Amino acid sequence: MSPLNSWYPFPMDTDFSIYNLPFGIFKPGRASARAGMAVGEEIMDLTILQELGLFDGIFLQDPSVFYADALNDFIALGKETTSAIRLRVQQLLFLENEELKSHPERSKVFFKQNAVQMLLPVRIGDYTDFYSSEQHATNVGSMFRDPANALLPNWKHLPVGYHGRASSIVISGTALHRPKGQTKADDAATPTFGPSKQVDFELEMAFVIGKNSDLGEAISTGHAADSIFGFLLFNDWSARDLQKWEYVPLGPFLAKNFGSSVSPWLVTAEALEPFKVAGPKQEPEVLPYLQFSGLHHYDLNLSVSIAPKESAETVVCRSNYRHMYWNTVQQLAHHTVNGCNLRIGDLLASGTISGPEADSYGSMLELAWKGSKPLKLSDGSTRSFIHDHDTVVIRGWAEKEGMRVGFGEVRTEVLPAKD
Amino acid sequence: MSPLNSWYPFPMDTDFSIYNLPFGIFKPGRASARAGMAVGEEIMDLTILQELGLFDGIFLQDPSVFYADALNDFIALGKETTSAIRLRVQQLLFLENEELKSHPERSKVFFKQNAVQMLLPVRIGDYTDFYSSEQHATNVGSMFRDPANALLPNWKHLPVGYHGRASSIVISGTALHRPKGQTKADDAATPTFGPSKQVDFELEMAFVIGKNSDLGEAISTGHAADSIFGFLLFNDWSARDLQKWEYVPLGPFLAKNFGSSVSPWLVTAEALEPFKVAGPKQEPEVLPYLQFSGLHHYDLNLSVSIAPKESAETVVCRSNYRHMYWNTVQQLAHHTVNGCNLRIGDLLASGTISGPEADSYGSMLELAWKGSKPLKLSDGSTRSFIHDHDTVVIRGWAEKEGMRVGFGEVRTEVLPAKD
Repeated sequence: MSPLNSWYPFPMDTDFSIYNLPFGIFKPGRASARAGMAVGEEIMDLTILQELGLFDGIFLQDPSVFYADALNDFIALGKETTSAIRLRVQQLLFLENEELKSHPERSKVFFKQNAVQMLLPVRIGDYTDFYSSEQHATNVGSMFRDPANALLPNWKHLPVGYHGRASSIVISGTALHRPKGQTKADDAATPTFGPSKQVDFELEMAFVIGKNSDLGEAISTGHAADSIFGFLLFNDWSARDLQKWEYVPLGPFLAKNFGSSVSPWLVTAEALEPFKVAGPKQEPEVLPYLQFSGLHHYDLNLSVSIAPKESAETVVCRSNYRHMYWNTVQQLAHHTVNGCNLRIGDLLASGTISGPEADSYGSMLELAWKGSKPLKLSDGSTRSFIHDHDTVVIRGWAEKEGMRVGFGEVRTEVLPAKD
Repeated sequence: MSPLNSWYPFPMDTDFSIYNLPFGIFKPGRASARAGMAVGEEIMDLTILQELGLFDGIFLQDPSVFYADALNDFIALGKETTSAIRLRVQQLLFLENEELKSHPERSKVFFKQNAVQMLLPVRIGDYTDFYSSEQHATNVGSMFRDPANALLPNWKHLPVGYHGRASSIVISGTALHRPKGQTKADDAATPTFGPSKQVDFELEMAFVIGKNSDLGEAISTGHAADSIFGFLLFNDWSARDLQKWEYVPLGPFLAKNFGSSVSPWLVTAEALEPFKVAGPKQEPEVLPYLQFSGLHHYDLNLSVSIAPKESAETVVCRSNYRHMYWNTVQQLAHHTVNGCNLRIGDLLASGTISGPEADSYGSMLELAWKGSKPLKLSDGSTRSFIHDHDTVVIRGWAEKEGMRVGFGEVRTEVLPAKD
């Protein structure tokens, strides 16, 4: 199937091609929030498609499921239904299909993406962050511990993870204030309080849980894919100086929970299926509950740009989601092996995705190597960490044989600390 | 006011005295969930009190607010309203008040606590666990690090905390399966997988957020009390052997998220007001944002009992909520000083509350000192950690000048690991 096979004027190289059709929640003007699907530079309103009878034959239980401020109830209908909706929209866009193309009310269905407000696609119950890129863990371990023993002993035996803050996850476009907190200089006796001097992005992917599980229920790697609805770009903002002082012995807290940013369009696992690739050989062999069959890595290009205030963007990182050691089904199996229950809408993030090359590291901490190699931006300024009024943009897209499936972007401006 | 001043037959020494009147959510038989208030061994159904017109004069916006499976919307009405409801119920119970006492439909209002199902009182958005008892942190630091430097350098400068799992917080009476996971013996080269051998309780208190705050908004210690609706008993179940292997460098994960248990009755901050006491002198002096005025510790007795299957309980710990170094307004001010937003229903737990005496330690890890001093139970058996089919019961109550305000209990049986 070629994009030319659609009557809809998909722009060349759009992330939101006929192969993608991701779900999101948008708010047109003062109207209430509703579910939509991204096509090119527009959104198709699923409530209107349904009202026009174009989903007749797909059983939705509650026909108002698309009138919602989150996709959770829709996702709860199960993949059979959510896939049927996506495939039906794809069918409506086919060149030879006249149902929507020639519909007298066709224009009611489409909204310009840049004319509406996007909301978080799901109500996030719990958010977990993993630490699953070997290069990232090695870089951090080398900088803060010992280059000869950069990975801690547990790292290759289990996907290290921790719980993050759900309340402060915000949608692309939401500005965040530089956090304040305690830091302590190595040569100081006591900590001081003030704005963080080391605000950093973390380039991550997150997946969204599509199925509730019971407390006490372990989900095997073989069944994990059933529980993964789709993917988002994720920027796990970090304040390195706060983290260094606070994180022993129980992990990061205020260094992370001032905000994390996600992209608005929930790209389905089905849409990413063609881009699956093999991951690295895991050595030493992992315990049986972490073994898996099939492909569970994704060849998905990722980039990070920084745009200083009123300046052009500079791409500072080009990475790829395939640079993971632990894959999604291993992360999910590990998360539930003790009986921890998952709920629809939960977010499981990858941890910073760093590739092997120095320009593929997924954080300023690594790119500028703890401030020792500041990056030069196209406006001539340099960066070791993020400055006030810098806008950080993460983009992600997969491409293969003329098919392109992308995420658009997650864009966040860092505002000065509040008084 | 003496309990004798009520026409209601409060049992002697009840936790749910006329001074308490905590809120909860219950489900009578097959009827739908609703809000109630504990009195003695009964529950007063707030939906019925309202239908009988006994809350007339208190503006509730949505009169169906008591028909709910969580108190969040009620709490959102603000303390002015929630306090007015509580004080109105107190008034209805006064000896001289005939409004309910002589009401022809009075019997409809009361349900036996042991005849209904209790649900979680609030929908918990995010759950944070602190580590705020100096004795506990000292005990753990002595066992696992260095008795001479048991507290880490940050401990007296900030209330160390981390994010926990909200999905697996369960109500008293819910049994939990022993978790499985990875452990590694000190002398082994690689980890093994199986049921945890070191399942432990953690005696904690939790407070419930009563007011939403905005992302970017710091709540000062002076304003923090406005955001605290009430308190619960909290058992932060832990698997020590899993924790030891997994927790570096990002903190506990599977060792904690297999379950945490809370008591059903949300005791209001107002009800605990008479039991406030001073905390310890904090030395070194804390940073200005952590300084406070007034009393913010509570003289609240706590106990933990273990009942092996079909055996009597043995009290293994007697502690007190006053044994905190960091108090609730400091915890809340710290949590938000970076702009992290709080939502109604969020839970902030104290961390294990250990007192100075060896029988006041709030976990088996400490009571049996890492297995070196097993506890003897009344049935003659010994415990270093919790066995299958042991039921752990935490109780909490404050008493002063004839007033008693208690929490009832949080009771959890540990079931064998699932196959």
